[in-house]
Amino acid sequence: MVTIEDLLKNTTAGATVAARDRIELVFEGTRLDSDKIIDEFLDTQRVAAETSRALDVFFVLLSGYLVFLMQAGFAMLTAGSVRSKNTKNVLLKNVLDACVGAIAYYLFGYAFAYGEDTSAVEFIGSGYYALSKGFGVTSNSGFNSFFFQWAFAATAATIVSGSVAERTSFYAYMAYAFFLTAFVYPVVSHWVWGGGFLATIFTVESATGPVDAGTIDFAGCSVVHMVGGFAGLTGAIVVGPRLGRFDSEGKVVPIPGHSATLATLGTFLLWFGWYGFNPGSALALSGGGYIVAERCAVTTTLAGATGGIVTLIVLKLRDHIFDLLACLNGILAGLVSITACCAFVHPYAAIFIGAMGALVYILATMVLLWCKVDDPLEAFPIHGAAGAWGALCPGLFNVREFQETAGLDPIGGDDYHGGLYGGGGRLFVANLASVAVIMVWTVGLVLPLFVLMRVLGILRISPEEEIIGNDVSKHGGVAYPIDATVAAEKQAAIDIDHLGMDDSLKTPNVTGVTDNEMTHPV
Amino acid sequence: MVTIEDLLKNTTAGATVAARDRIELVFEGTRLDSDKIIDEFLDTQRVAAETSRALDVFFVLLSGYLVFLMQAGFAMLTAGSVRSKNTKNVLLKNVLDACVGAIAYYLFGYAFAYGEDTSAVEFIGSGYYALSKGFGVTSNSGFNSFFFQWAFAATAATIVSGSVAERTSFYAYMAYAFFLTAFVYPVVSHWVWGGGFLATIFTVESATGPVDAGTIDFAGCSVVHMVGGFAGLTGAIVVGPRLGRFDSEGKVVPIPGHSATLATLGTFLLWFGWYGFNPGSALALSGGGYIVAERCAVTTTLAGATGGIVTLIVLKLRDHIFDLLACLNGILAGLVSITACCAFVHPYAAIFIGAMGALVYILATMVLLWCKVDDPLEAFPIHGAAGAWGALCPGLFNVREFQETAGLDPIGGDDYHGGLYGGGGRLFVANLASVAVIMVWTVGLVLPLFVLMRVLGILRISPEEEIIGNDVSKHGGVAYPIDATVAAEKQAAIDIDHLGMDDSLKTPNVTGVTDNEMTHPV
Amino acid sequence: MVTIEDLLKNTTAGATVAARDRIELVFEGTRLDSDKIIDEFLDTQRVAAETSRALDVFFVLLSGYLVFLMQAGFAMLTAGSVRSKNTKNVLLKNVLDACVGAIAYYLFGYAFAYGEDTSAVEFIGSGYYALSKGFGVTSNSGFNSFFFQWAFAATAATIVSGSVAERTSFYAYMAYAFFLTAFVYPVVSHWVWGGGFLATIFTVESATGPVDAGTIDFAGCSVVHMVGGFAGLTGAIVVGPRLGRFDSEGKVVPIPGHSATLATLGTFLLWFGWYGFNPGSALALSGGGYIVAERCAVTTTLAGATGGIVTLIVLKLRDHIFDLLACLNGILAGLVSITACCAFVHPYAAIFIGAMGALVYILATMVLLWCKVDDPLEAFPIHGAAGAWGALCPGLFNVREFQETAGLDPIGGDDYHGGLYGGGGRLFVANLASVAVIMVWTVGLVLPLFVLMRVLGILRISPEEEIIGNDVSKHGGVAYPIDATVAAEKQAAIDIDHLGMDDSLKTPNVTGVTDNEMTHPV
Repeated sequence: MVTIEDLLKNTTAGATVAARDRIELVFEGTRLDSDKIIDEFLDTQRVAAETSRALDVFFVLLSGYLVFLMQAGFAMLTAGSVRSKNTKNVLLKNVLDACVGAIAYYLFGYAFAYGEDTSAVEFIGSGYYALSKGFGVTSNSGFNSFFFQWAFAATAATIVSGSVAERTSFYAYMAYAFFLTAFVYPVVSHWVWGGGFLATIFTVESATGPVDAGTIDFAGCSVVHMVGGFAGLTGAIVVGPRLGRFDSEGKVVPIPGHSATLATLGTFLLWFGWYGFNPGSALALSGGGYIVAERCAVTTTLAGATGGIVTLIVLKLRDHIFDLLACLNGILAGLVSITACCAFVHPYAAIFIGAMGALVYILATMVLLWCKVDDPLEAFPIHGAAGAWGALCPGLFNVREFQETAGLDPIGGDDYHGGLYGGGGRLFVANLASVAVIMVWTVGLVLPLFVLMRVLGILRISPEEEIIGNDVSKHGGVAYPIDATVAAEKQAAIDIDHLGMDDSLKTPNVTGVTDNEMTHPV
Repeated sequence: MVTIEDLLKNTTAGATVAARDRIELVFEGTRLDSDKIIDEFLDTQRVAAETSRALDVFFVLLSGYLVFLMQAGFAMLTAGSVRSKNTKNVLLKNVLDACVGAIAYYLFGYAFAYGEDTSAVEFIGSGYYALSKGFGVTSNSGFNSFFFQWAFAATAATIVSGSVAERTSFYAYMAYAFFLTAFVYPVVSHWVWGGGFLATIFTVESATGPVDAGTIDFAGCSVVHMVGGFAGLTGAIVVGPRLGRFDSEGKVVPIPGHSATLATLGTFLLWFGWYGFNPGSALALSGGGYIVAERCAVTTTLAGATGGIVTLIVLKLRDHIFDLLACLNGILAGLVSITACCAFVHPYAAIFIGAMGALVYILATMVLLWCKVDDPLEAFPIHGAAGAWGALCPGLFNVREFQETAGLDPIGGDDYHGGLYGGGGRLFVANLASVAVIMVWTVGLVLPLFVLMRVLGILRISPEEEIIGNDVSKHGGVAYPIDATVAAEKQAAIDIDHLGMDDSLKTPNVTGVTDNEMTHPV
Repeated sequence: MVTIEDLLKNTTAGATVAARDRIELVFEGTRLDSDKIIDEFLDTQRVAAETSRALDVFFVLLSGYLVFLMQAGFAMLTAGSVRSKNTKNVLLKNVLDACVGAIAYYLFGYAFAYGEDTSAVEFIGSGYYALSKGFGVTSNSGFNSFFFQWAFAATAATIVSGSVAERTSFYAYMAYAFFLTAFVYPVVSHWVWGGGFLATIFTVESATGPVDAGTIDFAGCSVVHMVGGFAGLTGAIVVGPRLGRFDSEGKVVPIPGHSATLATLGTFLLWFGWYGFNPGSALALSGGGYIVAERCAVTTTLAGATGGIVTLIVLKLRDHIFDLLACLNGILAGLVSITACCAFVHPYAAIFIGAMGALVYILATMVLLWCKVDDPLEAFPIHGAAGAWGALCPGLFNVREFQETAGLDPIGGDDYHGGLYGGGGRLFVANLASVAVIMVWTVGLVLPLFVLMRVLGILRISPEEEIIGNDVSKHGGVAYPIDATVAAEKQAAIDIDHLGMDDSLKTPNVTGVTDNEMTHPV
């Protein structure tokens, strides 16, 4: 049979005149302009298709912008959670996570994650270094995809910075940050999201015959948070606790951060960015993606909110204070917990998952301290421990119907969703396997790196530097400089003589006001 | 007559073969693949419809993200506007507004606002508690709608926090925040936006016969800002002024907030979030919604800008300073003022409305102080007073044509828009009635609550706690801790002995640098 | 020939019955409802077209929101980069950039930029003052366009504020801010983006005959950044250095800003906003705009990241510290550099352009200091110098194919793109001419203004005010007030007698805690 397309392409046999000119629509004896009618239809078809594609690209870009803003969130949270003498240091590391991450991911990371996988064991992609061959082999490709994945990659390195904050050398930081963004994280993301072996653990029956099935981790509990959290834990152990974190009897000495306001701002920005992280992982609004995205927005909200409330209540019962900073971390633990299954669960399940995530976080915090591990940002309890809990949730709570909507479930035959919703145990087993594999991979790679740097003596700053603070010793001065300002003022008071200022104004006013004001800056 | 749909559904009488197979298109003697042509058309139709829906959902989600970020804005504004000794307290309240609000709105609020209304007086919705029945009965429903409405609900509670800041107990806060988010606000939103009685005050003639007409409040001057502002006023009166706010002769003692920078950051974030609040209230971009949204963006900008400029000028004339904080509040008053009518007015009208809003705000501030009411954030003048002014503006400035574009004006016959544009007086009367009803409802509900808590002695913290500050007494320490850090440093200086540090470095350096740096953190 | 449209409009000769009723589709002897079929098609066509338009408007609005947030970024960057005694002053200026900018651009700016150009030399638009005639004559018009262009206009004024910070009078600020937003910038944007003479320098051969060709500046290296940067440089020279910036021997005295944290937050917000600035300059997602936008997101990221890394390395080699603030400025220089050509270059070219931008910035900084020009925010090196470098990049690096995708290259015949990609030298010459013209125009206009204000003695604050700081002298007190708070506390301690407080609590606790806490606020 001949289609309109064939006609327009002039592929019907023996066509000598442009086919579209030979179509006639006659109306009451008048010949209609069939050419225009065909054009109108094709144009409508084209507009509809292009708008759909444009919307998908816009959605991915915008979600990427929000994920990028999480770097600002991490920066403020980290700055607020350390002592002011290390503020510039942690800020610079956050800035470089985005900068070095961009170059590392452009040169290597994207190729490893989404390049063509020619290995027999579906281990790693290749051939798209520096985007030299284009955009990899997954269906949703293009600059928007690279952009979104870069923003994700940068977060993994950032998580580690929190765990080893205040005592790790700058060179050590640069080494692990590049290593993580360029290799460790991209390979894991290839395994789960780029068609690697963790996505193809089982063979299950579908409506169209046997298909591969494996780990389901929608937005990266295991891929992003566990990688960051376990790398951070490894680093925190190898680099050792900050001076004074544990007293001579091994008792914990609190080292509060220098600004609860910055920590709160950072948490709000992270929560805001999570709406790019989780709903954005739908990667498209077409094909039902918008239904997925709106579910993610709600489950993410409920899990984060519950995480904060549960933590507040538990710590009120334990410590008898309403602990703002713990509440913030509880929110983050809730947000982490829902990340793997946000697209697939009922709202009430999100509340339960967030509550459990908060408890896992609190417990992990206590275990860390009991083990004398110093993690200034509690990055392991939040991202590693609650991340592992979250990574198991799809196997428990995923609803088949929601998996189908998300197009992540090509299975029409076998059950392969949450065990609590009649989905059998295979998804849980697959996720459990992923958790174990990713844990071993991450620790197995970063442990030698950290140990090597420690042996070489380049891992940790000297005790003198640690006491003085990184900012003075490495970054040219404190984050909130006073002396330089006062010095400049005093200089001004001297120079001012030739400006014809009345003497009575000079000394008392200058000194008085300056000193008064200078002692209380932001 | 038979339609293509009938054919495709095989509903024509006696159809034995699939209808679409029986349609023939013949071109120069060759049979075309009509099946493919029909599929192409239906596919195009489906893509166009789905993309339109996906765009609408994305618009609502994204607007909701921006409204959520207003919580960060409120948090920074509030923190900057109180003394540092209460910083963690106000931050935690802002965080909980989002968290508790999410749970309260999920359990009850959404059902009351958008559930089925079985009452005779169109008073309250029901039956959708915990989203158990789905998403209510309004046309734009789904997770995106719940998400957007939650973000709105959280703001109402936040406004109150500002009015009663620095001296209200944490339990009292939790009581009114839950009450407001779960009941007071949702019911009001039902009246105006959920088909309640305030939306059906009048019966007017339209092109298709008599229709209901009532209050028009596009983005919530009355529904959100007045509820928050009047609840806050009630709280501020019942809880009483902060210690030292008025001296023994009743004169006002300024209690400036501890950071103008945080207040400015907060205002910028609020302004940014307002682009979700106002344009987002179009609730869809389809059906001309994008024309509504772009008008809202411009009128919102002009009203906010004018509010800031007018306030700056008036206070310069009155107090002879360029008052940054008043200017920020003036911007907020301008933004509040335009919220009810942003979709319906000319740009020059927006400028006038914003200017008047600023004057209303300034006046209300003076009245409050004259009445010895202490509202640390000036939340009543901004949200309550300017909100009431804004709630009346649709009845004065709405242009019929713009109401029609927004689809909020089903009236083809009677005039029912701004009185200054020939719309008669009924819309003004309807809005005036709403202002009165909402004022009575809000005060009538929260006054007993606040009085009850006062009688029970759980409303206000003790004078000792107030002087020490909430942070030390309730939240485990100040927001910008110094002593703990110094203590840790000193501990470090002791522990450091076994690290083989040169003696000359220890005491002077540690003490010197630490003290120097420690006195000037953010 | 008769089209369906003609039929529907009843324009066929002698039509007495509604045409669409006379069309008959007969299927197996049954008459189909052709009316419904036609409606369905027209409806699909309408939905597809409206969704496409709605998406474009949403894209422009959202990009505008992000550009607006850059004001918050500038505010935080500027606040962090000045001494705390001028914090409120610079914050208020940033707030007013948005506010005054909105009114100025509404009254005049938009008309000058995008109004009808009736001049012979394509110099300036007119006739659309206060949007009185609608929205100008460019293709993408409407409220969304005005909104986006306002957000751009506000940034130009903001750049200047940085260069003249800490010693310029408030009235002088208001004069140049209004002048820049209402006239200087709009006229330049008319020349390049509004069909002015810089867009029509050459006549080149295209597939459809000779067409105009001129400067290509995608998102405003020359139009926005150079205007701001050169106006700032002029101001910095005329107003003179801050007191104490150079000692009696002319040596530079560092005057560090009071918060590296605020500067970092500001830079992150600016980077985030740049995703509105650059990709948003596609002005539409339809017609291939989404392909342009996603390229911009990636090139912008890579250039900014490289700018930061290169600056960090160069200054580490030069000054032996890892300089956070220089790294932040290097990121901004990288972002500025890519702004003109972000839509047209390869990712590797973006890396090169960003790296060169960083070097230009570093060099310009050194030249400025050598010339004894005091630019507290380094606004000229970043926006003026790196802006000029960026403005020349299209002539070197633009790829023809990418210009075509962006629809900015109507040329099918002559080469007219980057010289390094075989595009000939004319585009480079056109951009070079623009750089020169815009430089002369900007300096030529603002120099007389600044000189006039200096002669009149209203340009600079008095030395006394400068030493005391703007905040105390003009804005009613410091940004982080201490005394007022302590005073209020002391007052409270007196008033508290009638509250029945135990004496033992009062003096020591109040004084102790207050003093302790009061010395270390944010």
